[in-house]
Amino acid sequence: MSGDPVYQRQNFGNSVGFGSRPALLLVDFQVGFVDPGVFGGGNIKQAVSNTQSLLAGMRDIGAPIAYTRAVFDKSSADGGTFAMKVPGLYELEDTASISQITPELAPRRGELVLKKIGPSAFFSTPLMSWLLKHSVDTLIITGATTSGCVRASVVDSCSYALRTIVATDCCGDRAIEPHEANLFDIGQKYADLMTGDEALSMARAAFATNH
Amino acid sequence: MSGDPVYQRQNFGNSVGFGSRPALLLVDFQVGFVDPGVFGGGNIKQAVSNTQSLLAGMRDIGAPIAYTRAVFDKSSADGGTFAMKVPGLYELEDTASISQITPELAPRRGELVLKKIGPSAFFSTPLMSWLLKHSVDTLIITGATTSGCVRASVVDSCSYALRTIVATDCCGDRAIEPHEANLFDIGQKYADLMTGDEALSMARAAFATNH
Amino acid sequence: MSGDPVYQRQNFGNSVGFGSRPALLLVDFQVGFVDPGVFGGGNIKQAVSNTQSLLAGMRDIGAPIAYTRAVFDKSSADGGTFAMKVPGLYELEDTASISQITPELAPRRGELVLKKIGPSAFFSTPLMSWLLKHSVDTLIITGATTSGCVRASVVDSCSYALRTIVATDCCGDRAIEPHEANLFDIGQKYADLMTGDEALSMARAAFATNH
Amino acid sequence: MSGDPVYQRQNFGNSVGFGSRPALLLVDFQVGFVDPGVFGGGNIKQAVSNTQSLLAGMRDIGAPIAYTRAVFDKSSADGGTFAMKVPGLYELEDTASISQITPELAPRRGELVLKKIGPSAFFSTPLMSWLLKHSVDTLIITGATTSGCVRASVVDSCSYALRTIVATDCCGDRAIEPHEANLFDIGQKYADLMTGDEALSMARAAFATNH
Repeated sequence: MSGDPVYQRQNFGNSVGFGSRPALLLVDFQVGFVDPGVFGGGNIKQAVSNTQSLLAGMRDIGAPIAYTRAVFDKSSADGGTFAMKVPGLYELEDTASISQITPELAPRRGELVLKKIGPSAFFSTPLMSWLLKHSVDTLIITGATTSGCVRASVVDSCSYALRTIVATDCCGDRAIEPHEANLFDIGQKYADLMTGDEALSMARAAFATNH
Repeated sequence: MSGDPVYQRQNFGNSVGFGSRPALLLVDFQVGFVDPGVFGGGNIKQAVSNTQSLLAGMRDIGAPIAYTRAVFDKSSADGGTFAMKVPGLYELEDTASISQITPELAPRRGELVLKKIGPSAFFSTPLMSWLLKHSVDTLIITGATTSGCVRASVVDSCSYALRTIVATDCCGDRAIEPHEANLFDIGQKYADLMTGDEALSMARAAFATNH
Repeated sequence: MSGDPVYQRQNFGNSVGFGSRPALLLVDFQVGFVDPGVFGGGNIKQAVSNTQSLLAGMRDIGAPIAYTRAVFDKSSADGGTFAMKVPGLYELEDTASISQITPELAPRRGELVLKKIGPSAFFSTPLMSWLLKHSVDTLIITGATTSGCVRASVVDSCSYALRTIVATDCCGDRAIEPHEANLFDIGQKYADLMTGDEALSMARAAFATNH
Repeated sequence: MSGDPVYQRQNFGNSVGFGSRPALLLVDFQVGFVDPGVFGGGNIKQAVSNTQSLLAGMRDIGAPIAYTRAVFDKSSADGGTFAMKVPGLYELEDTASISQITPELAPRRGELVLKKIGPSAFFSTPLMSWLLKHSVDTLIITGATTSGCVRASVVDSCSYALRTIVATDCCGDRAIEPHEANLFDIGQKYADLMTGDEALSMARAAFATNH
């Protein structure tokens, strides 16, 4: 699909490139999105594994790190229409084991962990304020699922004018077709696509130049 | 793709249904998104044609009607990273003929016409305030393109807890694969899918009951 | 100040009135905003006391109830410039006793409790989505402080086109002058002012008519 | 009021200081907010006059410049509850002479001019995206009125973690008491207060160091 000539003719898919201050966002890498018996499956486990070295590298250069968790409270019915389409979201209660960040990617003190009730990491969270507080101009996005919360977060990141990078092998989805269809859309319209290794290498270069 | 068993097993794709007060949103039905020589192509002309009777019917029952136009100002560089990926967006200046609503769907006095610089009709516009002012609880979404500004608007509409309906034959895209891939995602996670005729029929029933 | 003739001449201060579905918002009624040794003082204790009967009455009619807590995490520096102006905000850590809701107004299961890092209850929280999910069109606002988080929440509530009611004797501030100056601004421009008893009486009437 | 000991004791009113990249925001300096027969009066004319040299200086150093205009469309009832409190806002139609920027401060090509329907310059506008696109970290705010749209814009600017500077003699209000009461609140909680001359001098120093 990526070679679709109409996109080329209409001049989609240009690069946004890196700015001077990248951060890393890990979207909904929760136990329940890794477990195929809950919301997981497909290539999500591989994405978790690939994200480990990107996370380690970004920590190493001192980049800001932010996580999101999808967390719902059935008693107050806080889940919007999202939870009407997908009622199982209400199982992601704050203290449920399936709503915790998967242990391989456990957050550390000083890293931001946000709860959210919509697909986007930006919607009704203080993520944008925190990125600005830390002078971030470039956001590397990883997580699950590509066709869900990753895609929605990418669109908002682009709308806020952040240079947005999607680490393709650090994103996963419960089925491969939606994963690939969404990477196509993202690469044409919203963000640059590269591997986690490439993103880390460019982040390192940005920090070396600017700090 | 729509029969993908993992989505069924994880209980995606439930219905949100209609509330009591529907409105109609027409996303970026601008000359430039209809013209295949600019950003158009695929099934967008057909979507314009199909939307005419939905629009007429919604006007007939007195439903609130809102339009968006993607409009950019190159001189102040207001286009975020979206305009870096797709530089042609800067041709959609406020007074350019390609940025006007296509004449078949021309807005009338009393209908809301919003300018926007991001994919979503909600991002950095007063759409949500206006919907609340008009007591809207259900939003029927049409427009171009399905994989771009329609999808982004659907996600925000769902995040704001509006019952969201996508009139599938009233949405179009420059290529059919992204159109269909995005309808799949939308139907599984964010909104109910139906034809414009079905949506109009349900909107009529809602107004008959509640007004 | 409230009789200032320029406001009358320019026709400020009209009434927004009640809609059909009111909810109650309690802004930052936390231990630390009641305690004069932290962020409290002035008439805040009296506001807590007055809010008890309003809260009981709103629960009695089954109205949606939402709380905010100002909560900060110094380790990730999530407090924006607000916490640069007022460094003590960083003491309001999630588990600190001063950041808990004051016991007289303790939330119950099924009521929404939001954490926030800015003055407004709407900024970077899912409050608007939750209000829409519960079909709220009228928001009765109480809390501390009038000149801070109450005022900011009122402005956003008005911007979102909610009918906004400020229960004047259920809002408090650490000093009386800012309390009164802000009630003046609010009454002229953003919301209707009434006592908690008056607000409850109107909420009861709205529920009796519409449910 | 500014010496109120409770604010000192609770350690309010600290400084946020300048970052490296300041921009200038002019809030609602429209003909109708200067004219005492519409929404003007008090010290607003003096604020316009004082803002002329600040604007010239900021242009001189090449800082990004943004304006807002309050603009309403009565036919679509887009004004939220703000226009219920203040019905005269509906006279500020897009083409009305009273809704244009006052000629002494006329915007130039390349400067951003935003329309808004709420008090805050950030609410439902792309201002935040544009500031990020231009790498702004410090926002100098001027305009009318201090107790209305300036105050609301300051609160959102602070919430987004921008270093916020209010040029006190470049803000005006229809009455002096609300002007001063709001500057007190702003200085204690949200932004640094200085004259336009002081702000320009610090902006010049920031640009000299960083560009």
